[in-house]
Amino acid sequence: MENIKKYMQQVGLQARAASRVMAQAGTNAKNHALENIATAILLNSGKLIAENAKDVAAAKTGGLDAAAIDRLTLTEKTVKSMAEGLRQIATLPDLIGEITDMKFRPSGIQVGRMRVPLGVIGIIYESRPNVTADAAGLCIKSGNAAILRGGSEALHSNRAIAACVHQGLREAGLPENAVQVVNTTDRAAVGELITMKEYVDVIVPRGGKSLIARISEEARVPVIKHLDGICHVYIDDEADLAKAIRIADNAKTHRYGVCNAMETLLVNAKVAAQVLPELGKIYLGKGVELRGDDAARKLVPQMKVATEEDWHTEYLAPILSVRIVADVDEAIDHINTYSSQHTDSIVTENYSRAMRFLREVDSASVMVNASTRFADGFEYGLGAEIGISTDKIHARGPVGLEGLTSQKFIVLGNGQIRI
Amino acid sequence: MENIKKYMQQVGLQARAASRVMAQAGTNAKNHALENIATAILLNSGKLIAENAKDVAAAKTGGLDAAAIDRLTLTEKTVKSMAEGLRQIATLPDLIGEITDMKFRPSGIQVGRMRVPLGVIGIIYESRPNVTADAAGLCIKSGNAAILRGGSEALHSNRAIAACVHQGLREAGLPENAVQVVNTTDRAAVGELITMKEYVDVIVPRGGKSLIARISEEARVPVIKHLDGICHVYIDDEADLAKAIRIADNAKTHRYGVCNAMETLLVNAKVAAQVLPELGKIYLGKGVELRGDDAARKLVPQMKVATEEDWHTEYLAPILSVRIVADVDEAIDHINTYSSQHTDSIVTENYSRAMRFLREVDSASVMVNASTRFADGFEYGLGAEIGISTDKIHARGPVGLEGLTSQKFIVLGNGQIRI
Repeated sequence: MENIKKYMQQVGLQARAASRVMAQAGTNAKNHALENIATAILLNSGKLIAENAKDVAAAKTGGLDAAAIDRLTLTEKTVKSMAEGLRQIATLPDLIGEITDMKFRPSGIQVGRMRVPLGVIGIIYESRPNVTADAAGLCIKSGNAAILRGGSEALHSNRAIAACVHQGLREAGLPENAVQVVNTTDRAAVGELITMKEYVDVIVPRGGKSLIARISEEARVPVIKHLDGICHVYIDDEADLAKAIRIADNAKTHRYGVCNAMETLLVNAKVAAQVLPELGKIYLGKGVELRGDDAARKLVPQMKVATEEDWHTEYLAPILSVRIVADVDEAIDHINTYSSQHTDSIVTENYSRAMRFLREVDSASVMVNASTRFADGFEYGLGAEIGISTDKIHARGPVGLEGLTSQKFIVLGNGQIRI
Repeated sequence: MENIKKYMQQVGLQARAASRVMAQAGTNAKNHALENIATAILLNSGKLIAENAKDVAAAKTGGLDAAAIDRLTLTEKTVKSMAEGLRQIATLPDLIGEITDMKFRPSGIQVGRMRVPLGVIGIIYESRPNVTADAAGLCIKSGNAAILRGGSEALHSNRAIAACVHQGLREAGLPENAVQVVNTTDRAAVGELITMKEYVDVIVPRGGKSLIARISEEARVPVIKHLDGICHVYIDDEADLAKAIRIADNAKTHRYGVCNAMETLLVNAKVAAQVLPELGKIYLGKGVELRGDDAARKLVPQMKVATEEDWHTEYLAPILSVRIVADVDEAIDHINTYSSQHTDSIVTENYSRAMRFLREVDSASVMVNASTRFADGFEYGLGAEIGISTDKIHARGPVGLEGLTSQKFIVLGNGQIRI
């Protein structure tokens, strides 16, 4: 325990020092590092897969479930896509040093903002080795230093990826300590990481709800977090029903285990009879379990009873709760009560209701006539995504490079003093 | 204790409900409220001063120090300036609802951002009644609900100001609960306020370092905070020495007890003999105690010895630490080691060094050829200021209306689904 503290302090100290170099690194150096890392990953793909095989074998012996083993496993395809991801990050514009809004003030000083890195970013994630490469890439491009703490089942894989990252940084003349993989599976390391205020500027946890809730509770460093995704689609009575059915189908059934999947469908009472039986057929045909209020169950008899708890639940599974509402007010009320403020969508052709929904729904992403599945850094054009924030402070919604930066004020004077 | 918890939960519940109304309030309604409050404050200035006199009398009996009593005391002049402050806030542009960066994506959806209020803002401050009006005004204009917890010595004053605020909100058709003054001096109320995650979106503490440190430590709600202001001026060897002397004088002696006053002066060794004796004379003439390193003390013999602790100290008093440095690198190093990341300024005519200082000094405000005293929401043109943040997350530097808002993503579609 004492040793872990000492080790993590050392990691923090090294990260802080590296962050000062990274903050000043030129765009070319950062892009070269990213390209070098991509190349190293491709050249070492055999080794990466062999190291990963050790992790996978141990995980199977340890009884990890199939989905987790799937996320843990590296294949030639996933190795290639890690490298591609890094090259994509290299093509994104460099935000660091960007100066905006320089305005002259009556005193004669000129005041504006400069975009700068946050400094040191701690990322805590589960056993998904591809996150190691992704997170390293985003932190390098945004001029930050990263301390990566992946799931213990992936330690061999993460060490092998880290070796490629270090080689790429070295070849670009950047400090290897810009990306450090925590080299211990001791859980005490996480406790240190999230409380080392002097060395860590922000923590980004990625993983299950309980992990994130625990980290948020215990952290003494700011956390950019994503709790749950209880997303809604509301079908208005002035919806184009063909669009409504397409969107409600896609939002639920495109993928079940993702945070931007719809968990509750709200249908205006005036069109429920027209739209719900058809949607019910689609869902049931795809094996989706339906749980509804009384009015919905009259229209789709196979529907089970939804309890109060259902409205609060992120299923991440082929289950959908359905509620009939009187109007857009009731829909907005339901969403602002039960939504996790992640992503909510209205389907309507009515201008005023669309505008009200956009204004009044208090979620990170609010949509009109689009599937909630679009709430994603790539789909939004951020180029990459370190996570999706359900917080309101700092970054909200999908977090790309910009979320890993901050703006300082700069003042250009000519000898001005305050009178 | 149990009662305080219940009371604060009730306050929180009311704030959350009011915040939903405030988020949708039109610009006219918010501006009318601000103007109404200003008028009510002016019309009731006799009553405000009478209520304040009770607080002042009790504070004198209680042995509050003179400076604190000064900050507590309301005069006709300060009452007028409260009203003026509110009217100024009314003239600022309304940021809420502002939509930016709407871009079409390959999928056909259009994605951008909408500026929205944070929701409920808890403000904890010392016994300065004018903060009650200021904070209320900023929260109203930014569409937030506020829970104000002022120092217990100012409770009568704050209640009287709150009555004016409520009258102004009511007359504008806005909910009185948009601004609530915590109506108890029990300290347990603060403990509740900073941990009610479901009702409070952000805490802004204003006051002494120990208060803010304690709140940050115990809060479970995000905190926009300002710890200390250890500000530096570096006089480069290519400085215009007349500007350098003017700025170094102003940064220290314009006001002593403020966070943006210089606490450490760094002087390039090549010009120290030209500039330091003259500056020493100015400082000593104004009664400023000087503490320096050996090289500085050779040039100004009246200087005391600076210890390691001095470089870490925010004096908030007529004391200045002075250090001679070899070059801009040593200056930046010193600043990034000892600065509280508040405000630091370089005096130089050298372009490259000015640019390096702007880039490399990791502080909320970085200046060239200007006094650190300019680090202020009004001087920066923010129109008003709820505080100055030394954090990097969310708002950095002076925090105006924008710091009390957040941006959500909005997506406009036409039936798009994810493929």
